[in-house]
Amino acid sequence: MFAVTILGNNSAVPAFDRHPTSQVVTYQGNHYLVDCGEGTQIQLIRYKIRRSRITHIFISHLHGDHYFGLAGLINTLSLLNHRQELHVFGPAPLREIIEMQLTVADARMCYPLYLHHINGPGILFENEFLRVSCFRTLHRIECYGFCFEEKKPPRKLISEKLQQYNLPFSAYEKLKQGLDFQMEDGTIIKNEWVTRPSAPPRKYAYCADTKYDESLIPHIRHADLVYHEATYLDNFREVAESRFHSTARQAAELAKKAEVKKLLIGHFSSKYDSLEAFESEAREVFPNTELALEGVCYLI
Amino acid sequence: MFAVTILGNNSAVPAFDRHPTSQVVTYQGNHYLVDCGEGTQIQLIRYKIRRSRITHIFISHLHGDHYFGLAGLINTLSLLNHRQELHVFGPAPLREIIEMQLTVADARMCYPLYLHHINGPGILFENEFLRVSCFRTLHRIECYGFCFEEKKPPRKLISEKLQQYNLPFSAYEKLKQGLDFQMEDGTIIKNEWVTRPSAPPRKYAYCADTKYDESLIPHIRHADLVYHEATYLDNFREVAESRFHSTARQAAELAKKAEVKKLLIGHFSSKYDSLEAFESEAREVFPNTELALEGVCYLI
Repeated sequence: MFAVTILGNNSAVPAFDRHPTSQVVTYQGNHYLVDCGEGTQIQLIRYKIRRSRITHIFISHLHGDHYFGLAGLINTLSLLNHRQELHVFGPAPLREIIEMQLTVADARMCYPLYLHHINGPGILFENEFLRVSCFRTLHRIECYGFCFEEKKPPRKLISEKLQQYNLPFSAYEKLKQGLDFQMEDGTIIKNEWVTRPSAPPRKYAYCADTKYDESLIPHIRHADLVYHEATYLDNFREVAESRFHSTARQAAELAKKAEVKKLLIGHFSSKYDSLEAFESEAREVFPNTELALEGVCYLI
Repeated sequence: MFAVTILGNNSAVPAFDRHPTSQVVTYQGNHYLVDCGEGTQIQLIRYKIRRSRITHIFISHLHGDHYFGLAGLINTLSLLNHRQELHVFGPAPLREIIEMQLTVADARMCYPLYLHHINGPGILFENEFLRVSCFRTLHRIECYGFCFEEKKPPRKLISEKLQQYNLPFSAYEKLKQGLDFQMEDGTIIKNEWVTRPSAPPRKYAYCADTKYDESLIPHIRHADLVYHEATYLDNFREVAESRFHSTARQAAELAKKAEVKKLLIGHFSSKYDSLEAFESEAREVFPNTELALEGVCYLI
């Protein structure tokens, strides 16, 4: 499963039982936490997401509503006897803040905690199947969006064909990589005879907090799912602009220009009790828009 | 009204919809926040306690479950256009941590924020009616309890007597202070003829996180209400001891020795789903014990 679950969809001030920003990207049983606003650990309990499965945490920027829950979560994992490595990525002073909080508490960590500085756009993490990279967004302070991209998946072997051509096991790896295979008698087995393509690699892009900014387009183009903030409705476009935030219409305009498949909007201002207008405003421009609702899991 | 409302009654790890430590002491319409665990601002909304009425915040120690909600609350007040002074008291590195968090966020505060170091036991704040002082508790790191004491209230004037003796308005202040008054003709009006005593001053003591420690007794003796932590039941007395915490029985023993009027126990470990056993264990030793339950307001 490749999916994102929303833990907090509100902007800075919590209201109407909406919480500050946090999301969990789940891929093959691992959880990748994206931002960690105050109360994230409580939201994880509420939505029954196993804290112990979190291996990486990515913090977009150091406004409190995106990271004030981090120190508490780090602490709690230790009290719960977590044993696995935890890797945290964030803009430079994050490490110092967390280290200071752990030091003054005389904390004894029972798992290996790695606090990494994000030093600019680039790849933050990759394993055999997934790559996480970051890109700049246009906010009042240094801020990063994150791309979660499946790597090119191996081609699928067609079992009847393997038998038909009597292919040895030693051929499988090359065939999965898309290569042809030469039999001992010199016969060339064309890759397309015995394999079929996998589903194309999927991509999720999280645009953090940002003004409307077309320079994001190359990073999110054709993505299966894009999260873009929509702090205000479009009649507050000037307020949004002055505070380095976006409106629902602007999020939809960017999604349309970037030809993404689906748009998720969130980071709603606490001035709005109801969210219906966000949905309708964005859908006028980009019909395949959904509201990022807390507790809901969106497939990528 | 002099009362305390519980916002969080759990120890470090939130569980069973119990939250990390925070309480609001209310006196004459002002709110004094005592500790501010993660999620406190959300609990304030849940229990409809006006954030704008908080004038002072007292942080007992720098374990995260007692202050990780502070930076978020400070931020939120600014975003809500709070204008009044806010005074925060806590052990020394608290100021540095909060200042760092405000600095990296490029925060613009719209109200005067004062971050005060607690430099040892003594008076932290007083006005005409109330005094807040702190005392050491016995925890793994530097930790303080807090006493909220009414000042000696003025004596009450008996209106019939004021008329009977034909006392001028200029006499009232002296009489309220307990002094006699000399009339223009030289007659002495004895204070007790025209006033009656007020109710005795009330006292609330918050014992923060602590081992069982009889040196707390002088600070809490005869208090109307004492909050004492009870992280464990008494069959975990050794665990409590090793972690610088107390059991329900120990809290009750201390309350009994200090001859307090009423005991409130909290800071329950997340290993306990039900809290009934805490109540019964403490009441065996000190019958006038209550569980500190979230959202409940206890009169002092």
